[in-house]
Amino acid sequence: MWTMSTGTLVLLRHGESEWNALNLFTGWVDVALTEKGVGEAIRGGELLREHDLLPDVLHTSLLRRAISTAHLALDAADRLWIPVRRDWRLNERHYGALQGKDKKQTLAEFGEEQFMLWRRSYDTPPPAIERGSEFSQDADPRYAHLEDGPDGGPLTECLADVVARLLPYWESAVVPDLRAGRTVLVTAHGNSLRALVKHLDGVSDEAIAGLNIPTGIPLRYDLDDDLRPVTAGGTYLDPSAAAAAADAVAHQGR
Amino acid sequence: MWTMSTGTLVLLRHGESEWNALNLFTGWVDVALTEKGVGEAIRGGELLREHDLLPDVLHTSLLRRAISTAHLALDAADRLWIPVRRDWRLNERHYGALQGKDKKQTLAEFGEEQFMLWRRSYDTPPPAIERGSEFSQDADPRYAHLEDGPDGGPLTECLADVVARLLPYWESAVVPDLRAGRTVLVTAHGNSLRALVKHLDGVSDEAIAGLNIPTGIPLRYDLDDDLRPVTAGGTYLDPSAAAAAADAVAHQGR
Repeated sequence: MWTMSTGTLVLLRHGESEWNALNLFTGWVDVALTEKGVGEAIRGGELLREHDLLPDVLHTSLLRRAISTAHLALDAADRLWIPVRRDWRLNERHYGALQGKDKKQTLAEFGEEQFMLWRRSYDTPPPAIERGSEFSQDADPRYAHLEDGPDGGPLTECLADVVARLLPYWESAVVPDLRAGRTVLVTAHGNSLRALVKHLDGVSDEAIAGLNIPTGIPLRYDLDDDLRPVTAGGTYLDPSAAAAAADAVAHQGR
Repeated sequence: MWTMSTGTLVLLRHGESEWNALNLFTGWVDVALTEKGVGEAIRGGELLREHDLLPDVLHTSLLRRAISTAHLALDAADRLWIPVRRDWRLNERHYGALQGKDKKQTLAEFGEEQFMLWRRSYDTPPPAIERGSEFSQDADPRYAHLEDGPDGGPLTECLADVVARLLPYWESAVVPDLRAGRTVLVTAHGNSLRALVKHLDGVSDEAIAGLNIPTGIPLRYDLDDDLRPVTAGGTYLDPSAAAAAADAVAHQGR
């Protein structure tokens, strides 16, 4: 069988959002980037350009912080014109009833153990969000097609849920682009990208708890014919900034 | 035969670009929006929102001034998440050897008759651009797939050429979205939108010379089952601003 060359995958986590800055759990709430987040996205695009790592196709979530990050980065890399696909399966983890809650208050109210279980355990979702409540997505037209419930998508998710809903999109939409030899940019979120990295690198359910992906720094994966990373963990285009930023993410809520 | 309802078409010409502001022929040169153009795009999105005319799908050209206009307008209308298709067939008319030339100087150099022939005649293209010259698109990767020539797309176009290359995309990509009952946003350029309006309204080759489409003001077409406009010429969401702006466009280069 003739095989086309396997392409290059580039992961980009959106820059700081308004609710990152306010230290609130965001999940599927559709908040905008801050000025800092705009700058991070542009810097991400400049890194792509400096490394001559020019995407042929873009995949994003349905959330404006990822879509705007992609727009700003591709503008900086002079690749705004590439084809785009957007899908809810690349969305951030749905944070259930925690959406809109202050991370520090949540830590104080529920204690370190419960807080870390919700944030970093693989298979414990937060309580479901109440339908019709302020930060639920029941009435959002972008999720009207979802079959998960009569009113829309999930009401909460753990990381295992994100892996389960992400992989069908990975297999059906992203992998074909890679198999066609393309350089594929995926612009998404802390937890949807952790889910993807878990899959790619075969990270255990336990070890994924300690893995944080920094914002705005493109992460490059070269994949072999079996779609396994040539270099485990991929390569950040700015490794020292990535190390510093990942450390900061790990200390959110403190 | 069961027919789905025919959707609504919304045309949006990009806001002022850097070369609009400098009064240069632009064509396929990929210049950015000015601050004024950014404001126009946002206002366009606010008009969509105020009129509850919310696009289900977006079609754009491959040029950043149209792509950015769509991004800004959809951000303002809270519809960034809709599916997107981009195609060179929605590009501005290729202005041939005039690309990069000052409109006023060109008028002075070639005289009123030749100037108006190039700008507004239906079937007289400007001289072809020289391959490899400063403002040609020979080496641009976004046009590498075009079959028109060994090095890329057209080297000049008259409006008749634009109609000819636009209609296959209209038929194959936009019409199916309309037939599916969707509200379809097409964000493009002065001449690609004139070409589309000529087709929709059955404007004659002579009369199209006098038709100018203003920037940043959404133009709504409700179409019947034969894709004919219910209201000839469509309806601007801000009619008085559209009339004033169209008048200003007609006097460019003076």
